[in-house]
Amino acid sequence: MIVDFSIAPVGKGESLSASLVEVFELVDASGLSFEHHAMGTNIEGDWDEVMALVKACRDRMLEKAKRVSIFLRIDDRLGVTDGIRRKVASVEAKRRH
Amino acid sequence: MIVDFSIAPVGKGESLSASLVEVFELVDASGLSFEHHAMGTNIEGDWDEVMALVKACRDRMLEKAKRVSIFLRIDDRLGVTDGIRRKVASVEAKRRH
Amino acid sequence: MIVDFSIAPVGKGESLSASLVEVFELVDASGLSFEHHAMGTNIEGDWDEVMALVKACRDRMLEKAKRVSIFLRIDDRLGVTDGIRRKVASVEAKRRH
Amino acid sequence: MIVDFSIAPVGKGESLSASLVEVFELVDASGLSFEHHAMGTNIEGDWDEVMALVKACRDRMLEKAKRVSIFLRIDDRLGVTDGIRRKVASVEAKRRH
Repeated sequence: MIVDFSIAPVGKGESLSASLVEVFELVDASGLSFEHHAMGTNIEGDWDEVMALVKACRDRMLEKAKRVSIFLRIDDRLGVTDGIRRKVASVEAKRRH
Repeated sequence: MIVDFSIAPVGKGESLSASLVEVFELVDASGLSFEHHAMGTNIEGDWDEVMALVKACRDRMLEKAKRVSIFLRIDDRLGVTDGIRRKVASVEAKRRH
Repeated sequence: MIVDFSIAPVGKGESLSASLVEVFELVDASGLSFEHHAMGTNIEGDWDEVMALVKACRDRMLEKAKRVSIFLRIDDRLGVTDGIRRKVASVEAKRRH
Repeated sequence: MIVDFSIAPVGKGESLSASLVEVFELVDASGLSFEHHAMGTNIEGDWDEVMALVKACRDRMLEKAKRVSIFLRIDDRLGVTDGIRRKVASVEAKRRH
């Protein structure tokens, strides 16, 4: 499955990038496929792998903020792996015809 | 924490309510506090409780559809319980003044 | 269409309810059907009506905060009105059988 | 502002990429800055520009499907332009130190 994941502390100032650095390090260290974009990070893996990573990110953020906002949008498709690359390629292929 | 949770099969017809009945039964049976609304269900509990329920709903849906779309928006606030009732009451109290 | 709408200032403290009071007054005054829930507000109307209201809420919030986070989830179904009430009733009816 | 935008027909089969081709053409033709990712498209511009584009995409999709699901997550920050590029760069810069 692919999860579009976004996390932010609530009430810790307008600039959020400092608090995201450690979260991104956890994503890097997870070994899962991921794609950062301007509004979040797409992570690919099975349910337990991805959710363990999301929980670790949340635990890290709650060490710094008393309130955390998390957003997850999940596309869970049986039998599909390598989905991050395939999704973009699928649309691109159709546009060329 | 409170999670606004929505789940839908992809590609199974326009009417989604039939596939939601079993999901709602799992929510009922969980013993967690919840609030259904027109676009989803708010569920309150600690991380592991809520996520175990969400995973069970997803597993049930994947028995009926090969592709499932899930949306989660999480408000995780240290030390807050009874949050579903409190959030609505907090705004209502301010509006009366 | 029905829109699940949530808005929050970024970096203005942990408690968000004070900043929401004026937004809720705009929703009330719009004349559109709505349903508050613990994580947002469902608003029903046609595209231009609902989006004009959302923009007015955003403009009001930007008078108080330099950065605003908005979340919208839209269920747009041709020929369906009275959707907020119908959606809940549809699932409830199936559960009774 | 930056909007993370995702649109899908409801009940039109598991593969969504065919229906997205025309939507992506509208995004291309808009002249706005955008970034496709595996779960959606980030679009940058002022409120009226971005929302006019989103409405055009929805109108196109409703020509093909009777029910459409749209998701928008908005980061609206006064005085910030070139935000798609800046957000990624901001986190990357902090990670190098």
